[in-house]
Amino acid sequence: MPDPPRDVLHYPSIHRTFLEPHLPPKTPSTASPYPFTTLTFATSLDSQLALSPGAPTALSGPESKAMTHYLRSRHDAILIGVGTAVADNPSLNCRIEGVGGYGGEGLEGQPRPIVLDPRARWEVNGETKVLKLAREGRGKAPFIITTKGAEVGGKREVLEGCGGKFIEIDTGGERKLGWRDILRALKEEGLNSVMIEGGAGVINELMSPENAELVSFVIVTIAPTWLGKGGVVVLPDRRNDSCGKPIAAARLDGVKWYPLGEDVVLCGKMKLDG
Amino acid sequence: MPDPPRDVLHYPSIHRTFLEPHLPPKTPSTASPYPFTTLTFATSLDSQLALSPGAPTALSGPESKAMTHYLRSRHDAILIGVGTAVADNPSLNCRIEGVGGYGGEGLEGQPRPIVLDPRARWEVNGETKVLKLAREGRGKAPFIITTKGAEVGGKREVLEGCGGKFIEIDTGGERKLGWRDILRALKEEGLNSVMIEGGAGVINELMSPENAELVSFVIVTIAPTWLGKGGVVVLPDRRNDSCGKPIAAARLDGVKWYPLGEDVVLCGKMKLDG
Repeated sequence: MPDPPRDVLHYPSIHRTFLEPHLPPKTPSTASPYPFTTLTFATSLDSQLALSPGAPTALSGPESKAMTHYLRSRHDAILIGVGTAVADNPSLNCRIEGVGGYGGEGLEGQPRPIVLDPRARWEVNGETKVLKLAREGRGKAPFIITTKGAEVGGKREVLEGCGGKFIEIDTGGERKLGWRDILRALKEEGLNSVMIEGGAGVINELMSPENAELVSFVIVTIAPTWLGKGGVVVLPDRRNDSCGKPIAAARLDGVKWYPLGEDVVLCGKMKLDG
Repeated sequence: MPDPPRDVLHYPSIHRTFLEPHLPPKTPSTASPYPFTTLTFATSLDSQLALSPGAPTALSGPESKAMTHYLRSRHDAILIGVGTAVADNPSLNCRIEGVGGYGGEGLEGQPRPIVLDPRARWEVNGETKVLKLAREGRGKAPFIITTKGAEVGGKREVLEGCGGKFIEIDTGGERKLGWRDILRALKEEGLNSVMIEGGAGVINELMSPENAELVSFVIVTIAPTWLGKGGVVVLPDRRNDSCGKPIAAARLDGVKWYPLGEDVVLCGKMKLDG
């Protein structure tokens, strides 16, 4: 077994217990057409993910960062929107000590990266971190979800060359992919759990009343920082009651708060109407 | 001693301990020209105080609400901006069991309400809750801070009639009151501690680099709710470093998170530059 790379992360077992009730079951549900879906992200106190799109924003502390990687090891897949893929060129692998590529065998514990890219605009090439890591055996190659008929050109060869692929979803001509179709496609790939990490557009969509029931649990990390005006904001659409009066857009149920380093971790379920 | 009114609140001693290091000292500092200043407010996960100005927004749980009243009992004064006074017609008293008007003697434990109203636009009249409570012996009458020369008209008589008063600050013609002048004026009134509760304009101003050093502690309650687009937002101004690159607007130091009911309470000090 090779030595783990220097960027390996440790997440102590003492901080694992509180997460357990919110994690995918060891034996996946066969009843649901959708995977176990965790919505997870880190914000500032003013509900921002970053100072600007693509700006590397040191927000969470080291403990929370390690937690995110531990959560990745507990899911079959991690999903991001194409905006985040383009802006951040993220690694999308798991660096917890003991997973494949970080002290462990093969690719055990490495989640499948999923990029939601309806019109196939993400340029996968030699600079794409997630492909590099896949070639080095430190992560799985990504699956890219597009609408049927999106022009992928030479990218198919690049992607398939490192073990990834495109998944096409037939939207009947609609430009937008629906979350039920996306999640069903993942389940059909044998991916029984997915951790959805962002960006803001994806998060805000999943918190809408239409989609909230698809989310098994929400795990939010909050850092004791205000980024200030002009950043990338988690802010769902306004909702009104039947008389047109504004009401809260979304609320969590069965809430647990867990202080972790300088941050706090919030776990809960989306509260559904009716 | 009369029976306490039915709206009395209880805040158990088990939840008092974590607040103690963040509260005004029993013996006030004589060295500082300013009072001990606590900035405290309750937000949603998307950093909002309310669905819209003046909309009563049930955000915090009963435990956090009781905590706010306990905090009021530990400060000489509580301060709000005129926008909040006009929009909410707030009570601005303390309803913790045992304070004056709620089972206790006289007005013991009742903070002095302060309304920051540079141009004296707050209409104090028979409908003003804080005046009503003062007349009923369940709270102190408010002090209203204006710029020197603001037209107060017949309001002076109404206010003084129930034990309140106007405090004029000479701004040398400026329309805006500076926070150093405001806080110095409070100290000169013998108010050695003040809890600043909002609204958003006041909070955002105090978090600016210019004013952050005036804040002794910040106590924020966060409810597990997203209000969604269009509410009243706590969002300080953007800051840039010397090269014009955006940086975090404000950060807390010495942070403590304390889960309280469904909410979490965050205590910390504003981190100062340099």
